[in-house]
Amino acid sequence: MERFVVPADAQSWVEVSADSHFPIQNLPFGAGFHMEDDSDDPRIVECVRIGDFALDLAVLAEEGLLDFEPSFIPLGWVSFDGPEGMSALRRQVYELLISDRSKLRDRTDLREQALIPIDQLTMTLPLQPRAFVDFYSGINHASNVGKMFRPDMAPLLPNYRHLPVGYNGRASSVMPSGEPVIRPNGQQKIGDDIVFGPTRELDFELELGYYVGAENMMGEPIPIDEAESHILGCVLANDWSARDVQRWEYQPLGPFLAKSFATSISPWLVTLDALEPFRIEGMAQDPQPLPYLRNPGPSHFDIELEVWVKTPRMERPQLICRSNTKHLYWSIAQQLAHQASNGTPIEVGDLYATGTISGESEDSYGSLLELTWRGQKPITLESGETRTFLEDGDVVILTGYAQGPGYRVGFGECRAEVLPAMPMG
Amino acid sequence: MERFVVPADAQSWVEVSADSHFPIQNLPFGAGFHMEDDSDDPRIVECVRIGDFALDLAVLAEEGLLDFEPSFIPLGWVSFDGPEGMSALRRQVYELLISDRSKLRDRTDLREQALIPIDQLTMTLPLQPRAFVDFYSGINHASNVGKMFRPDMAPLLPNYRHLPVGYNGRASSVMPSGEPVIRPNGQQKIGDDIVFGPTRELDFELELGYYVGAENMMGEPIPIDEAESHILGCVLANDWSARDVQRWEYQPLGPFLAKSFATSISPWLVTLDALEPFRIEGMAQDPQPLPYLRNPGPSHFDIELEVWVKTPRMERPQLICRSNTKHLYWSIAQQLAHQASNGTPIEVGDLYATGTISGESEDSYGSLLELTWRGQKPITLESGETRTFLEDGDVVILTGYAQGPGYRVGFGECRAEVLPAMPMG
Repeated sequence: MERFVVPADAQSWVEVSADSHFPIQNLPFGAGFHMEDDSDDPRIVECVRIGDFALDLAVLAEEGLLDFEPSFIPLGWVSFDGPEGMSALRRQVYELLISDRSKLRDRTDLREQALIPIDQLTMTLPLQPRAFVDFYSGINHASNVGKMFRPDMAPLLPNYRHLPVGYNGRASSVMPSGEPVIRPNGQQKIGDDIVFGPTRELDFELELGYYVGAENMMGEPIPIDEAESHILGCVLANDWSARDVQRWEYQPLGPFLAKSFATSISPWLVTLDALEPFRIEGMAQDPQPLPYLRNPGPSHFDIELEVWVKTPRMERPQLICRSNTKHLYWSIAQQLAHQASNGTPIEVGDLYATGTISGESEDSYGSLLELTWRGQKPITLESGETRTFLEDGDVVILTGYAQGPGYRVGFGECRAEVLPAMPMG
Repeated sequence: MERFVVPADAQSWVEVSADSHFPIQNLPFGAGFHMEDDSDDPRIVECVRIGDFALDLAVLAEEGLLDFEPSFIPLGWVSFDGPEGMSALRRQVYELLISDRSKLRDRTDLREQALIPIDQLTMTLPLQPRAFVDFYSGINHASNVGKMFRPDMAPLLPNYRHLPVGYNGRASSVMPSGEPVIRPNGQQKIGDDIVFGPTRELDFELELGYYVGAENMMGEPIPIDEAESHILGCVLANDWSARDVQRWEYQPLGPFLAKSFATSISPWLVTLDALEPFRIEGMAQDPQPLPYLRNPGPSHFDIELEVWVKTPRMERPQLICRSNTKHLYWSIAQQLAHQASNGTPIEVGDLYATGTISGESEDSYGSLLELTWRGQKPITLESGETRTFLEDGDVVILTGYAQGPGYRVGFGECRAEVLPAMPMG
C-alpha cells in the first residue's frame, strides 16, 4: 500500500513544541474519555493527536470536514476500513491541520470545539484487543536470558535464527497507560517450599506493539510483502512479568500466569505512514530466512526507546534504560507473516508485540531481569535506593520516538504504577 | 449455585431413543444456521437439543412460553445472564418438554415450528470464543509425553502436581464440528534441513472444553468454591497439533503455530447441571494442593470419551481410543481458579480446555502421538491401512457421554475431515 509521508518541513497552524512527540508528521490515532460538564457518563472521543491537543474526529465529521463515521466505541476503528482507510483519514486530517489551510484554522468556534486540550481526556485502548501475541525477537534479550538460565549452552536456542519465536498471551488484561498494575499473586518455589503469594520479582519488559487492521481468510497465509499492509499502527508495550512465578510454571508449555496479569500499552496508534521516514535495513540475518520470511526490503525502524522509573521517594523519574528497535532480529513484517503462515485467521484488533528490546550495553537492557542480572547486581537510583525488582508504589514509564530533522515522531508514554497485591482469601 | 437436576426417570413427550445423547436429562444449548425456503441468508437459531430435534428458543419466547431474549448472534448467550440465567432457562425448557406438560405438546402448529429436525441445522459455535486457554491436566498424557521426549528424567516435571500447567491458545481458529481442518504449513527440522511445508505429523488431541459465562473484576481471583458457578457448560475439543512443527518451534516459549491453526469443538454446551449426577471424586492428589487449589468437594466427572477415525477407503468410522475424563489430575474448577489466581480478567466467552485425556492402557491414549508412540508403532485399521499420523481425507470424530441409569447425557460429535495443505506462494 502507498504510504502518505508528511514532508519534514511541514508545520501545522496548531503550535507544537520542537521536542513534542506529536508534530504534524506524526498524527497518531487514539480514543479517550471526555467528562462533559454535567455528565456522569464520559463520552468516548476518537481523535488524532497534534501537539498538546486531541482533534475530535466526530466533531469534524459532523461539520462535513472529514469523511469518517464515529463509532463511540474504540473497536469502531474498524470503520476506517483497515490500514488503508486509516491512512486516507490521516491524510484528510493533515489537510485540515497544515499551516496554509484555513477550513478549520479560521473557524474559531469549531476549533475550540474540535481541539481538546489533552489533559481533559483520559486515554483508553485504541482498540479492545481481540488476541495478544508476544514474540521474542529482541536478540540481545533472548541471548541474555539464555546466558542466565542455560549457562552451559549456546545462549540462543537452535531455532532462534530460523523463525520468530513467539507465544500467545492474554488479551483481557491489556490495559492503557495510566492504569495501575496490581502486583499479582502466584505460585512460586522458594527453596524447597511451594508457596502462593505476591510475586517478589515483578519486572517490566520494553517492547514495541502493533495492531492488525485487516484480516486474512482461514487457511490463507499473509505473504511477507503484504504483511505491513495489515498493520494499523504501533504502540509501546510493557509486558509485565513475575519472574519467580515464571521460573516455576513455564516448563514445558511456556509463560502463562507470570505474564497474563497485565500488559500496558501507550494510547496512540502511530501509523507506519508516520514511521516510513525511519525505515532501516535492520541487522543482518544469518542464515538467510526461508522465502516466506524474507523481508522484501528494509523492514525495521529506527526508534529510540527509553525506560524511566520513579519510586515514591523520588521527585522525578530516572532514566534506567535506553534502547532502540533496531535491536530486533525479526521485523514486525516477518513476525506477522510467520504468525499467519499456518493459516490461522488474523483478526482486526489482534495486538502483537515484539518481545523485549535490549541493546548491547548494560544500560540498554529492557528488563530488570537483565539490568540487575537476575537480581545479582541491584541498580542504585538517584534517591540512594536500590532495586532488584519493582516495589509497590514504583512507577514505570516507557517512552520512545523516532528523530527526524527538526521533529520527532513519538509514542508519548506507557506509564503504570505498581499497586500492592490483593489480599488472599 | 443451585443445580437443577432432571430426575433419572423423567421422560419427554418428544420421542428420544435409549442411546441418544440428548434425552430430557441433558438439554444442552447450541446455535445453528437454518436455511429458510427462499433465503440466501441463513437464520441463526438459538436452541436446546432434545432427541433428534432442536428446540427454537426464539419461537417459544415470541409465544410467551419462555423468558428469553433471542440475540441472533451466538454471542447472544450473554443475554442468559451467565450460568445462573442459563440454568433457569434450561429449567423452563424442561417444564415445556416433560411428558405431562401440555403447553407446547398439544399445540401442533407451534410444535411443528419450534421443533426443528436436527438435520435441517448447520450447527455453529455456541459462543464466539473470546480467548482460548489449554491446560495439560491429563496426567497420563503428560507422563507419556515426558517418557517420549525426556527418557532420562522423571516423566512428570516437578511443577506438574503443584499447579495446573497450561498455556494460552488461539481463539480465532476455534471452529465448530463439521468444518474441515486444512493441513497447516509450518517450519520443520528434517535431519539437518530446515524446511517450510505441509506438516507430516498432523495429530488430534482428545480434550474436554468449557466456556465461561460470568466474569471477575481485574485483580480479583475466583475462589475455587465459586469456580464452577462461572462455567456455562462443557464441549468436546480437538486441539489439532502438528508434531513436527511443535518439536522445532516450542523452545523456550511453548507451543505456538503447531496448535494455532485449528481447534474443533462439539456444538452443544452441556451444562454442569446436566453433568451433576456424574460427579466423582477424581484421582487422589499428592501432594495436597495449596489452599487456593483445593477442591471443595468432588469436582471431577465420569464421562466416557471416544475417538473414531475414518479414512476415505473405510465405509464406517473405527474406534481407536476409549478414555474417560476421570483421568484428569486437575479438575476444571482447579484450572479456572488457577487461571484467575493472578487477577487476570476472565471474560464471558472464554473457552478453556483440559489438555489431552489419555487413559492408562495403550488403547486409551488421546492422541496419535501416544497411540503410535511417536510414530514408532503404526496402528492398523480395519481397512488394512496403517497410520502414524493423519492423512488427507481422514475424518476424526470425538464423542463422549455420561452413562446414567437408562439414559445418556452426551456431547454428540466433534468431527472434522483433514483437507490437503494450501499451495505455498
